[in-house]
Amino acid sequence: MNLLPLILAKRAGEALDEDQIREFVAAVSRGEAPDYQISALLMAIFCRGMDRGETVTLTEAMASSGDLHDWNELDLPTTDKHSTGGVGDKLSLIIAPLAAVLGAAVPMLSGRGLGFTGGTLDKLESIPGLETRLTRERFRDLVANLDCAFVGQSDGIAPADRKLYALRDVTGTVESLPLIVSSILSKKLAAGPANLVIDLKVGRGAFMKDLDQARRLGSALRETAVSFGRRCSVLYTRMELPLGRAVGNAPEVLESLEVLGGGGEPELRELALALTVEMLGLARPDADRASLLAECEAALGDGRALNRFAEVVAAQGGRLDPAAEDGGLPAPAARRLLEAAADGHMPLPDAEAVGRLCVRLGAGRERAEDAVDPAAGLRFLKDWGEPVAAGEPILRVEGSDAGRVDRALGELADMLVPTPEPGLARPLLIGLEDESGYRELSGLADLVTGS
Amino acid sequence: MNLLPLILAKRAGEALDEDQIREFVAAVSRGEAPDYQISALLMAIFCRGMDRGETVTLTEAMASSGDLHDWNELDLPTTDKHSTGGVGDKLSLIIAPLAAVLGAAVPMLSGRGLGFTGGTLDKLESIPGLETRLTRERFRDLVANLDCAFVGQSDGIAPADRKLYALRDVTGTVESLPLIVSSILSKKLAAGPANLVIDLKVGRGAFMKDLDQARRLGSALRETAVSFGRRCSVLYTRMELPLGRAVGNAPEVLESLEVLGGGGEPELRELALALTVEMLGLARPDADRASLLAECEAALGDGRALNRFAEVVAAQGGRLDPAAEDGGLPAPAARRLLEAAADGHMPLPDAEAVGRLCVRLGAGRERAEDAVDPAAGLRFLKDWGEPVAAGEPILRVEGSDAGRVDRALGELADMLVPTPEPGLARPLLIGLEDESGYRELSGLADLVTGS
Repeated sequence: MNLLPLILAKRAGEALDEDQIREFVAAVSRGEAPDYQISALLMAIFCRGMDRGETVTLTEAMASSGDLHDWNELDLPTTDKHSTGGVGDKLSLIIAPLAAVLGAAVPMLSGRGLGFTGGTLDKLESIPGLETRLTRERFRDLVANLDCAFVGQSDGIAPADRKLYALRDVTGTVESLPLIVSSILSKKLAAGPANLVIDLKVGRGAFMKDLDQARRLGSALRETAVSFGRRCSVLYTRMELPLGRAVGNAPEVLESLEVLGGGGEPELRELALALTVEMLGLARPDADRASLLAECEAALGDGRALNRFAEVVAAQGGRLDPAAEDGGLPAPAARRLLEAAADGHMPLPDAEAVGRLCVRLGAGRERAEDAVDPAAGLRFLKDWGEPVAAGEPILRVEGSDAGRVDRALGELADMLVPTPEPGLARPLLIGLEDESGYRELSGLADLVTGS
Repeated sequence: MNLLPLILAKRAGEALDEDQIREFVAAVSRGEAPDYQISALLMAIFCRGMDRGETVTLTEAMASSGDLHDWNELDLPTTDKHSTGGVGDKLSLIIAPLAAVLGAAVPMLSGRGLGFTGGTLDKLESIPGLETRLTRERFRDLVANLDCAFVGQSDGIAPADRKLYALRDVTGTVESLPLIVSSILSKKLAAGPANLVIDLKVGRGAFMKDLDQARRLGSALRETAVSFGRRCSVLYTRMELPLGRAVGNAPEVLESLEVLGGGGEPELRELALALTVEMLGLARPDADRASLLAECEAALGDGRALNRFAEVVAAQGGRLDPAAEDGGLPAPAARRLLEAAADGHMPLPDAEAVGRLCVRLGAGRERAEDAVDPAAGLRFLKDWGEPVAAGEPILRVEGSDAGRVDRALGELADMLVPTPEPGLARPLLIGLEDESGYRELSGLADLVTGS
């Protein structure tokens, strides 16, 4: 297919019509459009934008380029969460089993880390034996039996997105609103949940650096999802510091187990609760938010959420021992402690800098084809701003490659010099956008009371 | 080479620095940059533009990607003309030999037709045996011996432009000011003339549809050429109607012979004189324009220009008989006359429509790899607006394919219905931009008197 007429129209700032967009996506899926024309069209879309109608059509065409799941035969309403990506973001591992024990089915489609942000699939695959490349049938069986499964984007899910994303990544056309919206939602539409919560990360450590920018993306995502008949909320959350205390694949699995078991770092727990309450609120519209919060707290406290996670992991082939301190995960070959260089307060590290350091350590990938070290990562041993004494351990760094661990330790020593005064870590919850519009949130209580 | 940093910078509207531009051009020349990244960068340049400094660097880098001619060993100053392309534009065939007999050397680098506009090389190659793929040595010998030669863009001339142009053509990035300027001037700089006149066509039948747009391109071309130490003038000329009476390759060669022999259609002759006077004015700054015009008229009138053209053609292997009515060119297999459908006036045909019809007739190409029919073309037998009587022949159409000729005749009958009132053909000369700035022209006299 010759894309030149589409390129000329978009270059001139015109809207593409439905037929043009569908032919474009079909040609991409079938490999019938040359890369150089796809790239030129992507850059023209980046520069000139797409209107709401074009974005909806593009999303629908990309979703329809592969398998489309529906879950009508399930007794439970389906729900899913999507995060726009951050550092230390292990929330999916917590909230999917938590929602699954509270009256929703969670057919969770997850992605891999790229650049400085991590990915749920990489975290799960640090559990020996765990398989996220599931056939359509196995995915459906798991959801039917356990109300939860974690699946990667197989060849069958939105293949046009796979091709377009690979080209966007190397042609500087990632950060385009209509391309982001269609990429995210085409996969989620294909996976088929009726309800969707977007965790839209905002801040230096996120894709979206400020709230205005984030609101534009959040609104576009919500309105596009709604136009497909899905209920959708967007939770705007801060991403300036790493989320929780662990960054890296196995380290984040271990931290998830803490929260699933009723403990964990309070802010991480609060954000997990907020997202799960919102997911359940969409899926079970008759239940009030305060009751849903109480149900979530109970399911974390009595071990049901942790047990469900363990069952799902086992069903996907993973060998995990949630009762063991190390989760039964293989011990890292190298482990070092960073000691405070002076008396003072635990500094507030920049999430992106920490994320990039973890990529160098082996926990992430710069290119899609890179392998990751499942054991590599960090564990902060102090809260942000907590008083520390010279010589006291403030961080653990570990991984399979001792040289990399040592280099990371040196960089971390420069990054984590105790400060004379405690820095101010701002609350994670910023706001919620749902069918009633946008409102600011100062904490979990605001979400639950609806005030 | 990974072009992503350049794409990100240009996409954000930043200027690329000299090293980035040079590395880009080097990577393109050596085939070391992937097409999809080149295409994305070209579209980002299309959308965000390039400043004067970037354009100069890009032009220089593209010129330096291949052979660079200089003509310092010649006794005569060198001069060349570039046209931005039109329908019926056979001016190069006339002015190159004319300037060559009047004290300038003309190492003329010419191109092929693409889309609805014709190309000098195609016209010349309708002369049996004529060769425009010249080695560097043969090109230099011809210019040294005859002060004139016509050469095509060989592999050695600005190879980066060849690669970029091929991609621009299929990625909707042709109409970008910095890309047009660098493409035109990199080739001209490589061919090495010290003086350059740009024939900047304006109007429905040209690349530039209005004068404002044309002035932006003309100024950018002139200023860029001047920054390389070349003297440069831009003549803005109208392209609404076909230029002269013939369109097509062999038909335009024959019409060129008429003007070279001292006759020809008056407007075509006037434009040829204007361009040649300007070329000589740059090359021989001590001569006044009125004397140069008189020299040109004399060289057309006494046969010197025609003889020189015949010598150059023969030296390049062409078999032409300028004294014969058909120039000694092979007769077309099919030839039809169009008769006026009614009494009235000769209509004013749209240049682009005529150009596209001639492509369908076989005289041009839609794709660079298409072959052309050297014999295909039209000859208008009446002036624009001239009274015609029903049944009187008003046009001749010819070519190697009788079916195509018949189809063209049918389309021409629809296009050329005599009008009750004569249409108004506006003068061809619009304005001149030189080192003194821009001034409007109403005719050749304005150019010569400098008023």
